[in-house]
Amino acid sequence: MKKILLHLESDAKASVFDQVTAYDAGVDQVIACGGVAPEEVTNLVYGVMFTRGGDSLRNSAIFVGGTRVADAERLMDGVLQTFFGPFRVSVMFDANGCNTTAAAAVQKLARGRKLAGKKALVLAGTGPVGTRIATLLAREGCRVLLTSRSLSRAQEVCRDLETRAKVKVEPVQVRDGEEAGRALAGVNVLVCCGAPGVRLIDGATWTRQESLEIMADINAVEPLGIEGIKATDDGKERQGKIAYGALAIGNLKMKIHKAAIQALFRSNNQVMDLEAIYALAGEMSE
Amino acid sequence: MKKILLHLESDAKASVFDQVTAYDAGVDQVIACGGVAPEEVTNLVYGVMFTRGGDSLRNSAIFVGGTRVADAERLMDGVLQTFFGPFRVSVMFDANGCNTTAAAAVQKLARGRKLAGKKALVLAGTGPVGTRIATLLAREGCRVLLTSRSLSRAQEVCRDLETRAKVKVEPVQVRDGEEAGRALAGVNVLVCCGAPGVRLIDGATWTRQESLEIMADINAVEPLGIEGIKATDDGKERQGKIAYGALAIGNLKMKIHKAAIQALFRSNNQVMDLEAIYALAGEMSE
Amino acid sequence: MKKILLHLESDAKASVFDQVTAYDAGVDQVIACGGVAPEEVTNLVYGVMFTRGGDSLRNSAIFVGGTRVADAERLMDGVLQTFFGPFRVSVMFDANGCNTTAAAAVQKLARGRKLAGKKALVLAGTGPVGTRIATLLAREGCRVLLTSRSLSRAQEVCRDLETRAKVKVEPVQVRDGEEAGRALAGVNVLVCCGAPGVRLIDGATWTRQESLEIMADINAVEPLGIEGIKATDDGKERQGKIAYGALAIGNLKMKIHKAAIQALFRSNNQVMDLEAIYALAGEMSE
Repeated sequence: MKKILLHLESDAKASVFDQVTAYDAGVDQVIACGGVAPEEVTNLVYGVMFTRGGDSLRNSAIFVGGTRVADAERLMDGVLQTFFGPFRVSVMFDANGCNTTAAAAVQKLARGRKLAGKKALVLAGTGPVGTRIATLLAREGCRVLLTSRSLSRAQEVCRDLETRAKVKVEPVQVRDGEEAGRALAGVNVLVCCGAPGVRLIDGATWTRQESLEIMADINAVEPLGIEGIKATDDGKERQGKIAYGALAIGNLKMKIHKAAIQALFRSNNQVMDLEAIYALAGEMSE
Repeated sequence: MKKILLHLESDAKASVFDQVTAYDAGVDQVIACGGVAPEEVTNLVYGVMFTRGGDSLRNSAIFVGGTRVADAERLMDGVLQTFFGPFRVSVMFDANGCNTTAAAAVQKLARGRKLAGKKALVLAGTGPVGTRIATLLAREGCRVLLTSRSLSRAQEVCRDLETRAKVKVEPVQVRDGEEAGRALAGVNVLVCCGAPGVRLIDGATWTRQESLEIMADINAVEPLGIEGIKATDDGKERQGKIAYGALAIGNLKMKIHKAAIQALFRSNNQVMDLEAIYALAGEMSE
Repeated sequence: MKKILLHLESDAKASVFDQVTAYDAGVDQVIACGGVAPEEVTNLVYGVMFTRGGDSLRNSAIFVGGTRVADAERLMDGVLQTFFGPFRVSVMFDANGCNTTAAAAVQKLARGRKLAGKKALVLAGTGPVGTRIATLLAREGCRVLLTSRSLSRAQEVCRDLETRAKVKVEPVQVRDGEEAGRALAGVNVLVCCGAPGVRLIDGATWTRQESLEIMADINAVEPLGIEGIKATDDGKERQGKIAYGALAIGNLKMKIHKAAIQALFRSNNQVMDLEAIYALAGEMSE
């Protein structure tokens, strides 16, 4: 029986990236649906709920993706609401790669270290990946600061995280390199989540911050967010700090993504959300 | 050579249900086209007519589906008009599952019994499944009554059946339980084709109808159309009558659906319409 | 690892013909994208560029098709501009089958013959196939005349061929059979590229033209463009001339098409354009 993955997203064209990755993870057939509206979800999900029964149901699964994370969350809600009793299949949420990327970044920081008790700064952290990195760091026991150019935006995001993810994250306004340097005071863990090609902190600023131990940057496009590291850095020591660049994080992201897809087909009742994907990442040998 | 099924329908998203079922029937690749307009059919069909030749042509086939049966009939007409001489592939029509569901329901009623000469009542029978059940019962030799809340609607449907399917079906108006009871007079076979979750006839009404022998209900959502039976009833005796519920019919429908898909690939010249699907269902062991 | 072909075109429905042909050429999975706008290309191409690395990248490739050749050229430009350094996959351009059909037609004419120095007439040659046949004939060393009902249209196309394909082709106005006969003076090679079912030259006209040696007609629908030949002619002698009909050319086109698809997966850096496809056709045994 073929392993079938129903791919749902609101973007007009279903992500080719996610489809290729699904095939490489062992999926036999992706049924790709782009341009999905929330009111279309129920009938599409019925198509995998009611076609196979009993143990065979684990050969069908759902992936919710797309670049618009808020749209994808509505689709995901629709998927979960459609299931009832044993009529359900496993489902993974990874719109914009946010869950797998966040899991990869925090796994890089967590491996072989105790993050609990450390102070972490998530620079430009209000996007889907930044908020999820902040969430995972908080769950690892860090005191987490999350920055935005707009204080009210940072505050809004932190309130939302408290409500939805039950984690306490502190909002900080950072509009320039000087404010970035001030926010770095006492920080042990720095994660940079800015837009591709935007420098957020210069080398001198983080080099003189003695408390800083580890840095990660998810921006793969030069100039990177953190001056002085390289996208390929994978635990490289830079000025006495350990650095992880976007390509090293991206490689682990691909492994986590594939492992999460494979996990979907082990039973028909898994929800591969941020927590489950991060737990899975923790079990993987690199 | 891969078994390729070209799936055509007018709904924007090609049915996931039918795609999964096709794969489970052994199709190697579904090429799913949703949102198909009649004027697009010719070119799409050329894509399966002209790519493989000779005996290989039987490895390509077409499925016409979608929830809008009238639209699907226009697509089906377009498919059949595109074929010429040996340039044709096998094609199956099952918009809204109407042919396979009707075949399954009537097979349940017909197995091990002689339907010829019996009086049958198709309650709320003006939809795609109801009209097809009425057609098959008439072809089995039943005297068939078909009901609607609107007499003119029932009359229109029966005229259409006479013209298109060459069967005589009698229109009856049934607006409530009392009229349903009156329509049941002398009836041996009752089939209920109402909307999901709508009760059409209560237990006391059919229990006291001594002529009644067999009942089937294609509504799977409680309350069922016929009070006192269960969706899982599969030939269960209820108050001296034999009952078939929607899940039992649905299980047989899935088997018929898969068998019909498999039959498509035996030669390049089959038309799996209501008649052919019902004939195939009659040859299947359950 | 599955051989994945990303199929891009501007037509709303991705060509079924090209998808079936891709599967028959050994592609494991086509990811078919119809209705692609130029601004969507980059992200779709990233999906094959960034999912597989190193030698594995040759298992992903791109096909640019569709009936609107000018649209397809814009998509092709977008694909090629997205690649950088080693981040590229092989790509084939065959909108409207123009490259494979032209390569097949000229291969038929060229096999076992020396075309260099011959005078060739491409009747009704301003379309995508006609211009490419003219290009290939010119590159084989023919003196090439290309006709249109409109002289200015023929001139425009020839100027464009000089600029883009670097070949010299002479524009000729041909509005009727008499002008066709006059254009045939001294011609050795006649190719007819008119619309399906449109007669362009009658039997008496070409029969009396002593210089004429070979003829090809890509119109498969009766009446053919050249009176007196048959669509199945495959090097058949007709009135002392050698004739190739559309079905013979079409059969070779299919072989060339499949060979070109297979070639895509040999490395990650091939561009299967007119030149490459024609070179490949020349290496094939028939």
